[in-house]
Amino acid sequence: MDQIKFLAGRANWIRGSALAEVMKKAAELRAQGRHLISLSAGDPDPNLIPREALGELAGEILQEIPQSVMYTPANGIPELREELSSFLKKYEGYTTDPSEIIITVGGTGAIDLLGRVLLDPGDVVITENPSYINSLLAFEQLGAKVVGIPVDGEGMKVEMLEEKLRELENRGEKVKFIYTIPTGQNPLGITMSLERRKALLDVAKEHDLLIVEDSAYNFMRYEGEARPLKALDDEGRVIVVGTFSKIMGTGFRVGWLIAGNVIGKKVLMEKSPIDFCAPTISQYIALEYLRRGYFEEYHLKRALPGYRKKRDAMLNALKDNLPDAEFTRPIAGMFIMLFLPEGADGMAFATELMQETGVVVVPGKPFYTDGSGENALRLNFSRPEEEEILEGIERLAAFYRRKF
Amino acid sequence: MDQIKFLAGRANWIRGSALAEVMKKAAELRAQGRHLISLSAGDPDPNLIPREALGELAGEILQEIPQSVMYTPANGIPELREELSSFLKKYEGYTTDPSEIIITVGGTGAIDLLGRVLLDPGDVVITENPSYINSLLAFEQLGAKVVGIPVDGEGMKVEMLEEKLRELENRGEKVKFIYTIPTGQNPLGITMSLERRKALLDVAKEHDLLIVEDSAYNFMRYEGEARPLKALDDEGRVIVVGTFSKIMGTGFRVGWLIAGNVIGKKVLMEKSPIDFCAPTISQYIALEYLRRGYFEEYHLKRALPGYRKKRDAMLNALKDNLPDAEFTRPIAGMFIMLFLPEGADGMAFATELMQETGVVVVPGKPFYTDGSGENALRLNFSRPEEEEILEGIERLAAFYRRKF
Repeated sequence: MDQIKFLAGRANWIRGSALAEVMKKAAELRAQGRHLISLSAGDPDPNLIPREALGELAGEILQEIPQSVMYTPANGIPELREELSSFLKKYEGYTTDPSEIIITVGGTGAIDLLGRVLLDPGDVVITENPSYINSLLAFEQLGAKVVGIPVDGEGMKVEMLEEKLRELENRGEKVKFIYTIPTGQNPLGITMSLERRKALLDVAKEHDLLIVEDSAYNFMRYEGEARPLKALDDEGRVIVVGTFSKIMGTGFRVGWLIAGNVIGKKVLMEKSPIDFCAPTISQYIALEYLRRGYFEEYHLKRALPGYRKKRDAMLNALKDNLPDAEFTRPIAGMFIMLFLPEGADGMAFATELMQETGVVVVPGKPFYTDGSGENALRLNFSRPEEEEILEGIERLAAFYRRKF
Repeated sequence: MDQIKFLAGRANWIRGSALAEVMKKAAELRAQGRHLISLSAGDPDPNLIPREALGELAGEILQEIPQSVMYTPANGIPELREELSSFLKKYEGYTTDPSEIIITVGGTGAIDLLGRVLLDPGDVVITENPSYINSLLAFEQLGAKVVGIPVDGEGMKVEMLEEKLRELENRGEKVKFIYTIPTGQNPLGITMSLERRKALLDVAKEHDLLIVEDSAYNFMRYEGEARPLKALDDEGRVIVVGTFSKIMGTGFRVGWLIAGNVIGKKVLMEKSPIDFCAPTISQYIALEYLRRGYFEEYHLKRALPGYRKKRDAMLNALKDNLPDAEFTRPIAGMFIMLFLPEGADGMAFATELMQETGVVVVPGKPFYTDGSGENALRLNFSRPEEEEILEGIERLAAFYRRKF
């Protein structure tokens, strides 16, 4: 039966991820029994996550709390929202009433819901250029236009943002919000400076725009400071998207959204019939994770130093093996962006690298909003073991030197 | 800050659930310390779910499988899709290749994704009248128009469907699919007869429409037969939405979608950036639930007889206490629809009943697509204990007799 005629016109906005091809190729090689070194993940390290303790929690919860297998309120179980409110106050430095928090199916679920409530086809979303590919796809699927603003070592170039906003306003475009990952940005690994954060808030105020702060990597900071935009916001202009993914594990699918009363109410009405609630068992695990101090005990004291060590290993390996190459030096997050020589084709490089050396990296181009970034490669240091990082960068560097 | 101006035009399609008021009132009474008897749930019984065994599974999984805390493929972990394919063959009587199955965030997640890929604003969806309120809301949020077809004891009246389709076609309306819950329908509790199922497939063929079969209650059947539409479909016209919610628990948020290659591919592209994967831990629990034969051991042998007993208790209590009232007699599902005398206001009745007697039921009207159903009340028998059912129906009947 020919199904094509049943597809909606809006299905044309769905373009799929340009990374799918690379990942499919990797899966094929693995299926052929090839051992690959993956520097391509968007995951934390499952061995730095307290799986033993989480497993015990899960067992206790399912056996002792009948409600743990049932639907729970669409905005999240009240105890978790309360615990999270205290957590955000302590570690993020801002006050949020538990009633303002909506527990979502991961951070991506929060981003999609926001888009569904704020974006009409043709509306413009401002992002960093490059930005997180899944957020770009999510906005585009809703028919929005994404306009990226270049980034330097201090984050989004706010002067260029201002210029672009004037240009868009002159053209009669409707800009809805600025989406930013200010800390440990994906894919660049860059953290926005305090000065730049303040300037961004000023521009948003001047042009009366919302800011959506994706705080996914706020708890993967290895040095320096990074005050959340929300903590600098005195007008309620900043909407926060957060997630337990990077501390508890990406598979639990528990995130949060703090969107203000009017938007929050609409989000909740939109959310209720389509996802009911974030997975209840995951919510209870998150609740106990916070209550029992596992964030301090396991994440801050154990995992974070482990990630810092891996980041240092990758940075040193890049410096030693590719002394002339350009790459970012993250103080937070999971990623380093490596730039091949000007004019090089990163997509082809990544494919050949995988085939010839068994090292998997992610081409950077799909993260760029304007088709640039051809020579960029995103490297992940959070998931691989330290030895894999060293071996992977050595092989990558040898391949690089043969090419350029 | 005034947020209203940031809302999308499409946010006007979000109307929220008319049940929210009743549920809010119930929450208020509970907060005041009032003990309520709830016949309002859409949940199975947490004490008929093997929480002890599921808890042990969860502990083992998290401790032994590093991948269990990580992202997994957007279409679901391969082992689960394989196991589910065998399960569907055995219990539903049709063959599906594991590659056709997409594991979703609950059945509602599957319905939303289908809508996102198939529906443009203004498109028509045919449903039973009444139908599951969250599906109606999900379609309307996407800008679709819902047209309901009356139901009798054998299910959707297919003759009236044909008439309505001709009328819609003459008006130039674009009908995309027929959404049906053929077994243990929510809210009526009615199961479509085999003859009616065949007739429905014929009409869909004649008018070249897709059928979306919501099989949520297929595994809560207490007597009789109910061949899935998918098992009768030789053209690939039936799309299946399924869920582990009613057997494993609603809180796990694992469902599935079998949509065919073209639609399935688009769904997967739409899904990947917004929910990544159904909760990994829930997927592994579902996998082991099937692998270890828990479906037979716990659901078929233990839970199902328990639900049958509760259904009988409610039916008998209604017959004894309200011999003249009209109500449905389900062979499957979780619900009985009780009809107050013609012209009665079910919304007001439910509110007063709750306040005066502490018994919570769900007004039927919000499930109707045409504003009718004023005198209908949806009663749930799966979640309450048998004593609660007896006491609840007695109080309801006494209140009823005072009113009418």
